[in-house]
Amino acid sequence: MGKQIEIICVGNELLIGKILNTNAHWLAKRTTSLGMTVRRVTVVSDDIAEIATAVRESLKRKPKLIITTGGLGPTFDDKTLEGIAKALKRKLEVNEKALGMVREKYEAYVKQRKIERVELTPPRVKMAKLPERSKPLPNPVGTAPGVETKVSGTVLIALPGVPSEMEAIFEESIAPLIRKEAGVTVFFERSIFADGIMESVLAPLIDEVMHGKSYVYIKSHPKGQEKKPHLEVHFSTTANSHETARKCVDGAVTQLSQLIEENGGTIRRQSEKHEH
Amino acid sequence: MGKQIEIICVGNELLIGKILNTNAHWLAKRTTSLGMTVRRVTVVSDDIAEIATAVRESLKRKPKLIITTGGLGPTFDDKTLEGIAKALKRKLEVNEKALGMVREKYEAYVKQRKIERVELTPPRVKMAKLPERSKPLPNPVGTAPGVETKVSGTVLIALPGVPSEMEAIFEESIAPLIRKEAGVTVFFERSIFADGIMESVLAPLIDEVMHGKSYVYIKSHPKGQEKKPHLEVHFSTTANSHETARKCVDGAVTQLSQLIEENGGTIRRQSEKHEH
Repeated sequence: MGKQIEIICVGNELLIGKILNTNAHWLAKRTTSLGMTVRRVTVVSDDIAEIATAVRESLKRKPKLIITTGGLGPTFDDKTLEGIAKALKRKLEVNEKALGMVREKYEAYVKQRKIERVELTPPRVKMAKLPERSKPLPNPVGTAPGVETKVSGTVLIALPGVPSEMEAIFEESIAPLIRKEAGVTVFFERSIFADGIMESVLAPLIDEVMHGKSYVYIKSHPKGQEKKPHLEVHFSTTANSHETARKCVDGAVTQLSQLIEENGGTIRRQSEKHEH
Repeated sequence: MGKQIEIICVGNELLIGKILNTNAHWLAKRTTSLGMTVRRVTVVSDDIAEIATAVRESLKRKPKLIITTGGLGPTFDDKTLEGIAKALKRKLEVNEKALGMVREKYEAYVKQRKIERVELTPPRVKMAKLPERSKPLPNPVGTAPGVETKVSGTVLIALPGVPSEMEAIFEESIAPLIRKEAGVTVFFERSIFADGIMESVLAPLIDEVMHGKSYVYIKSHPKGQEKKPHLEVHFSTTANSHETARKCVDGAVTQLSQLIEENGGTIRRQSEKHEH
């Protein structure tokens, strides 16, 4: 429970299917590998009320961490911080540290491009308007800083929607935070591929193995069709050490592989082990 | 309001970042092209309580349509219908029509593969256990039927997680339903690409154009970095006819292109028009 995270992605472009939600995928994979459990992903539009509602609902579930992506830029429809401020009933105010970060970026651009002095126009100042009592997080590759706010037991982080910026701020400021909090929990996963056994035959076998080793989560993913069965079977667990995690998963893989072969299936190949 | 849809994706594999949520992307694009507005996408785990909560929350927002993906198969962790039943306070019961569909599929497999008679084992019967007062939707490419349930003003549809099955049931049973309800609404979009103008300079220009033509939604997507600006500007609208929609978008494109050039930017190229 103490390691739960929720992801809230803000952006009309996600809701009209213009782009694939690779940010949610990256964050889910990355935070899972750091030992956290992603409880929910929510995608909402660039609308202050929608953002505020999603944040409030998420806070009620008391996750350790909420990460939002998108809506931090200079344009009128970048509304994430307004939405968060509304949810927390805090004002938006120019954060001097954030303004310093934005100013530095533009001064560097001016130098590079040898153009006239760049002013801090309202759209640029906008990127430094944070909810009260927030902390800006440096953006190593772009302009808009990330934002960190604490709300009772939850840390609420707002990251930009541009993947390279989102990932850079995550690695620089969020990953160390999670590692510090999470202790030594590791996530371990591997897959086997089974042919010649239907998913409906496999179902009770998985049940049997998971019943014995409930700390390993096993899930079958049909890759062919039920009539020409080709199944990926995915094993995952979290534990206090790599060794323990690997031992649990390997035990479950061995046991299920045997059961699959006893039921007429063949194990085609095993995927590489993934460690994080 | 009458054309809102919500998408609920069920699956631990999404929350651990094992797979990208291409189903949400496909459904968002497809339903938008049919004139609907996707209000929210929610991803939850294979957990009855989590699924039920997400469905109940979504129903409270009274969308016209809710589509769930995933969790209809034969395995123990396919729990979507249990979650829906819990949300609606209905029982799960074997639906004779659904059982007939499942039986037919297995009989066909038996014929094809010339193996011994396939029994309707509990995991197979499970795929025909629907919430009371539901209708099974034929699955043209897989085994588990889709499920349609009406709840006051909302149609709740459960689709399988395998993309080919999800898409096939959608095209056969859902698209005609939406077309019938939606009348002649069409969605129209196009993009232009601008170089040499910063997003923070573009922001008030977009504001100006959208203020004049609020029925066209304009959004900038930074492709380079703020310091070496390369921006995609995406225009979209819905209208009663292709002609109207195209005319609105083209007007906004012309107006904004002019403003961009007046501010030192260049329009690099225009994407093809997309019509649906």
